[in-house]
Formats: sequence, structure tokens, C-alpha cells
Amino acid sequence: MKPTIFWKNNAVHLIDQTLLPHQYKVIACRDLKKLWHAIKTLKVRGAPAIGMAAGYAVQLAAVNFKGEDARKMRKDLLQACRYIATSRPTAVNLFNVLNAMRVVINDESLATTEQIRRAIVRKAKDIYELDRRTCRLMGAHGAKLIQNGKTYMTVCNAGALATVDYGTALGVFYSAKAKGKKFAVTACETRPLLQGARLTTWELLRAKIPTTLICDNMAATMMKQGKIHGIFTGADRIASNGDAANKIGTYSLAVLAKYHKIPFYVVAPFSTFDMAIRTGRDIPIEERAKEEVLGYQKVRWAPSDVQVFNPAFDVTGNRLITAIITEGGVIKPPFRNNITKAIEKSITSK
Amino acid sequence: MKPTIFWKNNAVHLIDQTLLPHQYKVIACRDLKKLWHAIKTLKVRGAPAIGMAAGYAVQLAAVNFKGEDARKMRKDLLQACRYIATSRPTAVNLFNVLNAMRVVINDESLATTEQIRRAIVRKAKDIYELDRRTCRLMGAHGAKLIQNGKTYMTVCNAGALATVDYGTALGVFYSAKAKGKKFAVTACETRPLLQGARLTTWELLRAKIPTTLICDNMAATMMKQGKIHGIFTGADRIASNGDAANKIGTYSLAVLAKYHKIPFYVVAPFSTFDMAIRTGRDIPIEERAKEEVLGYQKVRWAPSDVQVFNPAFDVTGNRLITAIITEGGVIKPPFRNNITKAIEKSITSK
Repeated sequence: MKPTIFWKNNAVHLIDQTLLPHQYKVIACRDLKKLWHAIKTLKVRGAPAIGMAAGYAVQLAAVNFKGEDARKMRKDLLQACRYIATSRPTAVNLFNVLNAMRVVINDESLATTEQIRRAIVRKAKDIYELDRRTCRLMGAHGAKLIQNGKTYMTVCNAGALATVDYGTALGVFYSAKAKGKKFAVTACETRPLLQGARLTTWELLRAKIPTTLICDNMAATMMKQGKIHGIFTGADRIASNGDAANKIGTYSLAVLAKYHKIPFYVVAPFSTFDMAIRTGRDIPIEERAKEEVLGYQKVRWAPSDVQVFNPAFDVTGNRLITAIITEGGVIKPPFRNNITKAIEKSITSK
Repeated sequence: MKPTIFWKNNAVHLIDQTLLPHQYKVIACRDLKKLWHAIKTLKVRGAPAIGMAAGYAVQLAAVNFKGEDARKMRKDLLQACRYIATSRPTAVNLFNVLNAMRVVINDESLATTEQIRRAIVRKAKDIYELDRRTCRLMGAHGAKLIQNGKTYMTVCNAGALATVDYGTALGVFYSAKAKGKKFAVTACETRPLLQGARLTTWELLRAKIPTTLICDNMAATMMKQGKIHGIFTGADRIASNGDAANKIGTYSLAVLAKYHKIPFYVVAPFSTFDMAIRTGRDIPIEERAKEEVLGYQKVRWAPSDVQVFNPAFDVTGNRLITAIITEGGVIKPPFRNNITKAIEKSITSK
């Protein structure tokens, strides 16, 4: 199986996730505009994969730059960063990667366009390798929480399709499966774009993990019936106090989990933390087009003159979160202190 | 506008709700089998409307009966009752109406087939008129809870399409609107069959009530943002302690409402109460076909080999319910005592 996103022949290649599970198609983006559009229309999605796409976007701009004027190249590359930043507002990985790229672009020790280009390519490769390693570490930490004979719930797609490798929440399941644990997963379909129904089921079935699909409004009933023993979700941005933005419907599951006394875990790499913001209230939430709620793709089932509210994400307050699973280990409350400590430790150990 | 279900030219006529909002079509059922199928496939749905359909089913059997043998007619009609009872298991109105019909069928004072037939027709007419009057009374009681400038949430379709007249939960809104109150409604789309997106929006827009459509997993976010000031739902069966079965997703909203300190109201006529059962645990919950969750109508978005859990209803425990609005007034906790009192009062005042 090809990875979700990869660089080949001077182009960014990615699985067009809007076609799954019916069609498996890899598209090549040779210019920035096509890649911007692929991010915007969710052909590539998932916070870490979006981050990687942003990294490759800068690489694309560097590779496509003509001429020997290093100053002009820097200007063009910074412009590319600004442009890609407008594709989607919520996932912080996008901005974190662009900031890392800006450091390279502005590095005055790189004198020629060729030096800049090589440094950008190296940085993108680092991001790729880091994401892969991070997935495996999160999986290993999270797998310890998975017990034989139990069933775990997840929402949206926080799997291989959302990262360059193994996934965040689904990485925990893959890792547990690789260790020989026997368990089952319930996937919430995740309206309006149905990433759970389309992508998570597709991934989990390929991994031969027993999977049950439900509509989002059935989660509470399964919890009440004692059928769910833990919830694992990804995150698109985590504030410095642990408040976590993730796909719409996550907050709902967190409240329901609290009520039913079920542990609720967020699985996310350090790159998803935004230490510049104090709480989830400061996370911008993308609102998407009305048409997504009126139907699905070309099928329309609601009257077109009805008003629609369509936030793509919600924010789960830290007091609803049992623990956050990172590549550095499992972070427990009190979150503000423990997140700061974990991130400081990760920086000093690098 | 034609009512949802009505008797005309020796046939049961009903709006085919599976075609809404795109197509408004009234179909005529001249035999039991077609009517059974219409109930089973949700062409007619909503607890009171299903009850009315059951009443008309017996009327259809009575009208279609040939011959003068009263004993054979009684046998045929009781067989018709048994047959219709197999169409859907959860809505108690169906069984209540069939029991009322059985009383007529078994009434030994009716000597001829013509007498039996007339009594059945009269009983069906009574049920129709009672449902209409009941809707208006529930609406009037519930409208007192609606405040200017506020927004109320509802799920599935508990409107005119679910009854012979005004609706249960939506009847509250129609009544408040008729009294000149200004408010808005948020409709949850109600996967998998999307009665909220298709039917509730259609009804409310026709009634010129400002309506916002959301996916079911967005309800929690609206509550958290302080945008919802009360929730009104219908019910398919209410146990003697107030536990209420309703469309899947209702229980989820009730838990979320409790967490966000938002009042949660059930609107249902006395015919929806099942005093034979002590708690909601005794309410049978219909599980429907896997295909409903894998997609919508002919569109399929999930892999067909995934397992599915598809309960059509859930049960909301009485401690999550602020009040139950009936034709006899608003019933508040403690529910077991107050439901018994209200029903006794309704019987003695008849």
C-alpha cells in the first residue's frame, strides 16, 4: 500500500480521499494551486497529513523556482507559505510546518538558490520521517491502554490516511493489534463528510480489526448499553491547557463519555499542540459550505432554502479528557503543567 | 394541504414521506398488504400517524369483507389486527389502536356484518378526531413554554407528518407561532433516514418558522455556545415511570441537554403511554437494516462488508426529562405518580 502522501518525480502525490472507499486513486500535484485545492477540498485531510502537504507545497515552490536570484526565491517561497496558510484554518500542524519552513527560507547561511532548495527538501524529508516515527511511538504508548475483549470507539479518521504513516488514534489500534491484542472498534460515521464511514472502516477492515459502523447519534445508546470501554480520537489543535479541537462530534462524544464514565483519550503528536494559546476558546473553527449538510456529494435530501450551521470542528474542554497520548508518553491531568513539562522534555531530549 | 393520512373512496390515502421534500405524492392503499408495506418502509411514520394507519387498516379489512357471516368477519378482522401488529414494534399507538379495534370487533351486541362495519368506521373516525383535538391541546400547553427571541431544538419529525393534524413537538411550535411568538428552531438531521433534514425542515419552512438544519453531531456545540434554549421531541412509547422511547439520537440530546442545563421536553398524547410497563427497559427497540447506515437510499458510501448497529429508537430515562407535555397538561416529576394521576384524570373526565 502506498502512503497517503509522498514526493515522487518532482510532484506531490496523494491518495484522493474523497473517492474512498469506492475508488483508490493517487493524484499528482505539480503546482501549488492544485495542491492548495486538494487541501481545501479534503482530497488530503487529517492534521499531520495536512502538515506534510504544507511542507511539500514549499518544496514544490522551491523545485519549480527558476533562476539564480536567492533573494527572489526567498520572496517567492514566503509567498507560497502565505498562500498555503489560507487553505484550512484549524489544524495547527499546517502552521507549525510552515513556520519550520520559514526558518529554513530565512536562513542567511544558505547563499545560493540551490542551497536553499536542498535545505527545503531536507526539511520536508525530516518532517516526513518525524511523522512516521511519531506515529509508531504514539501507537506504542496508547496500545498499553487497549484490553483484550473490549470495544473502543473512534470518530472521523485519525488513521494512516490522516498522517504519512500509521495514524494517531488508529495507530493505537494498529499497534495493539500488532502486539496480538484482540479487541473491536466502533466507528462513528462522522457527518457531514463521513470520514468515519468511508475512511476509518476502510482502513480498519484492511487491518482485519473487527469494526462496527454507527451513525453519530447512536453513540450514546452504545455507551449506555455498556458496549464501549474507551474512546480514542485525534486532534487538529490542542491549546496549552489541553483543550482539544477535533472533528465536529468529538465534543459530543466527550460529554457522553463523561456521563457514562468511559475514559476519553486524545491521541496527537507534539506538533498538534499550540503553546501560543491558553485555552480552546482561542482556536479558530472553520465553518464549511451549507451544501455539505443539505446532502452528500451530488445527492440532496434537504430543502435548499433552509439555513445551515456547519462547523467542521469542535473543542473539547480539558476536564472531559482522561489523557492525551503523545510520542513522549501519556499526559494526564493537571494538563497545563503536565503538557508544559512533556514538551520541555521533548525539546531538551532532541 | 392534505392531511398526512386520510380515508377516501374506500381506500387509505397517505403522503409518501420517503419522497419528501423533493416530491409531494399521495398514494392510495386499497388492500392490507400495501398498507402494511407502507408502514414498514416508512411511507407513513410517526407514532400517532402509525396508530391511525392501524385503525384504517382494520377499516379496510372491514370494508373489503365479503359475505354476511359475522363470525367469519370477526375472525378475519382479528387476523388483520395480528398482521398489522407485525409492521413495526416500537410505537405503542399502533397496539393501543388495535386493542381499541379489538374491543369493537368482539362487541357481541353488534349482530350483523354491516353493524360491525359501521362500528369500525365510527371508531376509526373517533381516533382521527381525537388525534386532531389532542394535537391542538398539546400545542396549546406547550406553547406557554416558548419564549420570544429564543431557539429550540428538535429531532426527527414530530410534526403534522407524524400525526393526522398538527404534530406533537412541532405542534408546540405551530401553536406558539399562531399566538404571535417570535422564535427559531434548530432541526437535527436525524440519521440514518434523515427525517429531520427532509420532513421537519420542509414543514417548518412552510409554516414560515426560521429554521436551521444541523448534523446530529453538531447539537452539542450549539448547546455549548448557548444557542439552544430548550429541546422538544416526540415519543414512540412512554413507560409508566416516564422513560421515553423516541427516534435514535434523542437520548444523546437528553444527556447533552442535562450537561448544558437546557430543559428537555417530551411532547406526546396519552395514547403514547404504555402503563403496562414499569420502565423503559421493557420497551422493545426495533433494529433496522444495515443498508440504512451504509449510505442513503441508492447512494452507498461505506464498505459493504463492515458490521453495522442500527437501532431505530433509544430510551431516555425519566431523570433526563424536564417535563412531558400531554393533551391533559404538562406533567412534571416525580413522573410515576404524576403520570398515573394525569391518566386517571383524563379517563374520569371523558
